[in-house]
Amino acid sequence: MKKMSIAIDMDGVLADVEAQFLKWYERDFGVKMKKEDLVGKTEHTAFPEEGMIHRFAHTEGFFLDVPVMEDAVEAVKSLSEKFDIYIVSAAMEFPQSLSEKLKWLNINFPFISWRQIVFCGDKRIINTDYMIDDHIKNLDFFKGKTILFHAFHNVSYNHHDRVNNWKEVLEFLDKAF
Amino acid sequence: MKKMSIAIDMDGVLADVEAQFLKWYERDFGVKMKKEDLVGKTEHTAFPEEGMIHRFAHTEGFFLDVPVMEDAVEAVKSLSEKFDIYIVSAAMEFPQSLSEKLKWLNINFPFISWRQIVFCGDKRIINTDYMIDDHIKNLDFFKGKTILFHAFHNVSYNHHDRVNNWKEVLEFLDKAF
Repeated sequence: MKKMSIAIDMDGVLADVEAQFLKWYERDFGVKMKKEDLVGKTEHTAFPEEGMIHRFAHTEGFFLDVPVMEDAVEAVKSLSEKFDIYIVSAAMEFPQSLSEKLKWLNINFPFISWRQIVFCGDKRIINTDYMIDDHIKNLDFFKGKTILFHAFHNVSYNHHDRVNNWKEVLEFLDKAF
Repeated sequence: MKKMSIAIDMDGVLADVEAQFLKWYERDFGVKMKKEDLVGKTEHTAFPEEGMIHRFAHTEGFFLDVPVMEDAVEAVKSLSEKFDIYIVSAAMEFPQSLSEKLKWLNINFPFISWRQIVFCGDKRIINTDYMIDDHIKNLDFFKGKTILFHAFHNVSYNHHDRVNNWKEVLEFLDKAF
């Protein structure tokens, strides 16, 4: 039987970009903020200086040493036994990120082959059975089953199944099969 | 009504890589070959030195100045009025090509936005109504309607609708709608 397939997002799902935003913000502004300070804000208004996240994401080096999301490596490895895994990142908006993201995946997820990686602009072209993503804009147009991964900017949305971490992803998919 | 969508391949469809292979072969080996000399060969055996195409495709600079396929710009511009266009390239096998391909698209197809670009490994994740591609391996697993774009390595296959050039793509899609 053909395996079910999952499209897994990078930023905010495999890669803990929140932690990286906070680190870069402290480095550049000398202000230490915590993840809780961001909850409920948008990506645009996360920091007092508007558009800071967008600026960081457009800066060379940002994606290269983003911390890996807790438990993500073990979870994706475990899911790879049951599912066809694709890593799908809407990276095309940030051209400088393409090579950084590829290097990051090769370093942190060496068991993921180039055949399983997709960098796109708009995710509505993606055809898998499941999609795990922290962005409503990606999940809302997806034809398969959706899993919303917790992020500060998505706490007010309740129209997708929500998981708070990778342990909950595994529990959710265990129950589904 | 939602527009129909088309996934358009880059190498061998938008980008005349055959011409580039022949140019690089002459530059490196001093032997001038013609497109007709390649017809019926595979990508592996196209040149007397086996695997030459793969070697060229892995070399920095190869994709940056590939000639545009004849009539491709006008045809894609015209199709953009009727269809949602996505440029889908299996570029992930050639990591050095990602930034070159993006630059090439920006220079030669400036009306294509980053939202319409997809770089992937395996195209079976792609969900559009049509796919235009020169590779059987991409079309055979595609769920929508397939259009095989002529290339030296695909002349013996007849199980997809075939077009020989971009004028024929427009004729084909005109008839279909």
